[in-house]
Amino acid sequence: MCRFLAYLGDPIYLEQLVCRPRHSLVRQSLQAEESKTVTNGDGFGIGWYGERETPGVYREVMPAWSDENLLSLSATVQSRLFLAHVRAATGGGIARQNCHPFHYGRYLFIHNGQVGGYGQLRRVLESALPDHLYEQRRGATDSELLFLLIMAQLQEGMSAPEAMRAVLQHTEALMQARDIKAPLRFAAALADGQQIWALRYASDDAAPTLYLKPQAGGCAVASEPLGDDVEAWRPLGQRQLAHLQPGRFELQPF
Amino acid sequence: MCRFLAYLGDPIYLEQLVCRPRHSLVRQSLQAEESKTVTNGDGFGIGWYGERETPGVYREVMPAWSDENLLSLSATVQSRLFLAHVRAATGGGIARQNCHPFHYGRYLFIHNGQVGGYGQLRRVLESALPDHLYEQRRGATDSELLFLLIMAQLQEGMSAPEAMRAVLQHTEALMQARDIKAPLRFAAALADGQQIWALRYASDDAAPTLYLKPQAGGCAVASEPLGDDVEAWRPLGQRQLAHLQPGRFELQPF
Amino acid sequence: MCRFLAYLGDPIYLEQLVCRPRHSLVRQSLQAEESKTVTNGDGFGIGWYGERETPGVYREVMPAWSDENLLSLSATVQSRLFLAHVRAATGGGIARQNCHPFHYGRYLFIHNGQVGGYGQLRRVLESALPDHLYEQRRGATDSELLFLLIMAQLQEGMSAPEAMRAVLQHTEALMQARDIKAPLRFAAALADGQQIWALRYASDDAAPTLYLKPQAGGCAVASEPLGDDVEAWRPLGQRQLAHLQPGRFELQPF
Amino acid sequence: MCRFLAYLGDPIYLEQLVCRPRHSLVRQSLQAEESKTVTNGDGFGIGWYGERETPGVYREVMPAWSDENLLSLSATVQSRLFLAHVRAATGGGIARQNCHPFHYGRYLFIHNGQVGGYGQLRRVLESALPDHLYEQRRGATDSELLFLLIMAQLQEGMSAPEAMRAVLQHTEALMQARDIKAPLRFAAALADGQQIWALRYASDDAAPTLYLKPQAGGCAVASEPLGDDVEAWRPLGQRQLAHLQPGRFELQPF
Repeated sequence: MCRFLAYLGDPIYLEQLVCRPRHSLVRQSLQAEESKTVTNGDGFGIGWYGERETPGVYREVMPAWSDENLLSLSATVQSRLFLAHVRAATGGGIARQNCHPFHYGRYLFIHNGQVGGYGQLRRVLESALPDHLYEQRRGATDSELLFLLIMAQLQEGMSAPEAMRAVLQHTEALMQARDIKAPLRFAAALADGQQIWALRYASDDAAPTLYLKPQAGGCAVASEPLGDDVEAWRPLGQRQLAHLQPGRFELQPF
Repeated sequence: MCRFLAYLGDPIYLEQLVCRPRHSLVRQSLQAEESKTVTNGDGFGIGWYGERETPGVYREVMPAWSDENLLSLSATVQSRLFLAHVRAATGGGIARQNCHPFHYGRYLFIHNGQVGGYGQLRRVLESALPDHLYEQRRGATDSELLFLLIMAQLQEGMSAPEAMRAVLQHTEALMQARDIKAPLRFAAALADGQQIWALRYASDDAAPTLYLKPQAGGCAVASEPLGDDVEAWRPLGQRQLAHLQPGRFELQPF
Repeated sequence: MCRFLAYLGDPIYLEQLVCRPRHSLVRQSLQAEESKTVTNGDGFGIGWYGERETPGVYREVMPAWSDENLLSLSATVQSRLFLAHVRAATGGGIARQNCHPFHYGRYLFIHNGQVGGYGQLRRVLESALPDHLYEQRRGATDSELLFLLIMAQLQEGMSAPEAMRAVLQHTEALMQARDIKAPLRFAAALADGQQIWALRYASDDAAPTLYLKPQAGGCAVASEPLGDDVEAWRPLGQRQLAHLQPGRFELQPF
Repeated sequence: MCRFLAYLGDPIYLEQLVCRPRHSLVRQSLQAEESKTVTNGDGFGIGWYGERETPGVYREVMPAWSDENLLSLSATVQSRLFLAHVRAATGGGIARQNCHPFHYGRYLFIHNGQVGGYGQLRRVLESALPDHLYEQRRGATDSELLFLLIMAQLQEGMSAPEAMRAVLQHTEALMQARDIKAPLRFAAALADGQQIWALRYASDDAAPTLYLKPQAGGCAVASEPLGDDVEAWRPLGQRQLAHLQPGRFELQPF
């Protein structure tokens, strides 16, 4: 289980969410409260949009709490849309290629959860990738694979929610066909440079938590509340999707 | 193009080949002489057999020339059979998972070369892996993939030379079927804890160099001579296989 | 606060203490029980003696729990005398140069604790180093500095306990002269290739814990018991020194 | 010997100098042309000013040529003033703490060169640091030490050129007093967020090269020309100082 956050709104320094709050993401890397794993020290990553369509990405295998580059970068770079993630590895090994956010073109993706029986499913899931996305596969995680599968659906013309639904349904169907009992868990955020889709989903009723906080000039989503203002963070329900756009957000059943 | 060495014989400190010679492997990481790429600084690895069947492996993404751990390890550990490799990445990214030697059970493998048109072939080559080896895939290199394919053949009962031949023929057949003109290049060493097979092979006539040096109590193979004793290093011919066993070695056409 | 262990006895695989026990040092890197800091993920190190006088040292900035090299090394290398350490940084930054064990010639040193008011004392403590040891200073920690100061005393002809006492007294005198109230804490192990001195000391009465476990063929010292056999681990008292030699150990007041 | 560059002018993407030119700094990390050491693969760093007084700094021990974070950061971040450096270690070990730029408050510093007889001089040079800067010492390089000494002079009220002159004269006097024959070499750039001072200096007449290129909207300084436009890069003379400010630059004898 990992921890993540996403922000869309007026440009702010990344540190305002990543490092500064009492229970910031960097703090959660050392001691998360609502996570199965207390420590999320198996690497981290941050992705942010500037003036170009393609985002910047900084990923590192060290724990977020001890990385001076992350502190400095977060105190210097402002962004209107960024994602950050701290990892507790469940598989795939420690490597930058296995750190979130994953990126392709103008898209960024962060994920907390897992595909039940991934070892049995990896081959068939990878076989569903079109050639040009198969070539993009760099690591060994289920998260990167889900992202590339979603990209494939987007390229087919689906909307982001449709693409996520198609990939999750496809995955669950494969799990059922193999009689895999371990659940599919999927708390994730996908961004295209203009908007964020954050989904809380699971094949059972224990989807990883997600919270949303509207704030002056923007909106943040996170695995757990970042500060003492716990009441300001609305929990998303099971199978609920948050759609963030400049100036507004919507919650939808999924 | 990478540089590597392999040794079988009386136990020696790893440093005697890895760090000490005037043109040692560590030195080659900074300045190789017979390589297309002068610098081999994209990580390195060392694998050695002790008293257990499973070898020890140390892989790191830093350049070999600046790694104090490698110096210290090589000065303290003795082994009767070890492999070492410095990497110049041609693809797959910088990660320990992409560093050689690759290992599985009691086997170690190092490779210098490439599969022409790998981007087009990766999917079909990976699809040839049996399930339990597919799950072992950690990185994105052609080298790791060739190793797992060879493992599959060994598990089917083939000898090491037969397994390498089967994989190379299968790969070349796929290249021809796709009309890929870029060559297959394969200088590699495979070890099982008791013996080493070192092969110099290419689909054209420009296989990466390999040299063999019989020495008191053992035998070494390397991409290029390691010291001033250049004449002591016999070049392997194109498509020649060296088979090293305790007390003897054989050269065979392949 | 860090966690460490030391072993002297019949050669064993490092993993028997480092990775295998239910509450092994690797496990403690993620979740220590008797430490002020639960997580000790700011790097680690291992030092072991082979056949040469100079020990091998492997230090890394990643958390011990995620380092495959450590697992492999520990499963392959046997030693009759080794030290291992997982770090929770209190100062000095994340770098291999700040990881334990520190080494000089045939000596190894690991430390858990801190020098109260170190920022004020660093300059005067460093000024006490003789030139050739001043040049050996690589990092910025109090631990490395204490080690080099102990080396200086050893080179003057003191025994190991005398050298530690001289350095601790000198440091405490400097602290008192500056009216520093923060305590000096010093749980440490020093090895010379033949013996280990493990000391539990503090200027107040809250020295970091140390436990000793005699076992068949040897003796281990650790910050906290490594397994379920908690009763087999004798706690050292405040200001108690354990002296381990082949075939025997002694506990002395300090 | 290292390679570096500095830029002041209209905001540009860092990549325009760091990664894009045919002979960019990233390219020089693999193959420099006017450097004693061809490969500058012992870490790198980049420092840039945004809207705050304190700059952002990203330093890493990997070679610049293989770091995807650097590529991504350089393609996303724009700055009106930045410094970048690739390192060929001459001493001090591989650690982020030994990578340039060094930073303190609003200042950044990059250096190519060395202090002759540094091993003999380190102690006396460090003793000249005031307490609060002594505490800032993180690594072991002569470069960091020269930077902190310059900071001390700036805090005494000197201008940047005066501070550099005072430190260089002090160092040379110490070298002469010890009869050190190895030269002092100092090609460096110092920035305060508004201006850059780039100095080419040596105690002999072999100061490391520096080139200056005025360009539309700004001015760049580099160890060697970055592109095919070699004539556009004016070599600085021995003991010449370039002072870059918004809209203008001056060359002065030093």
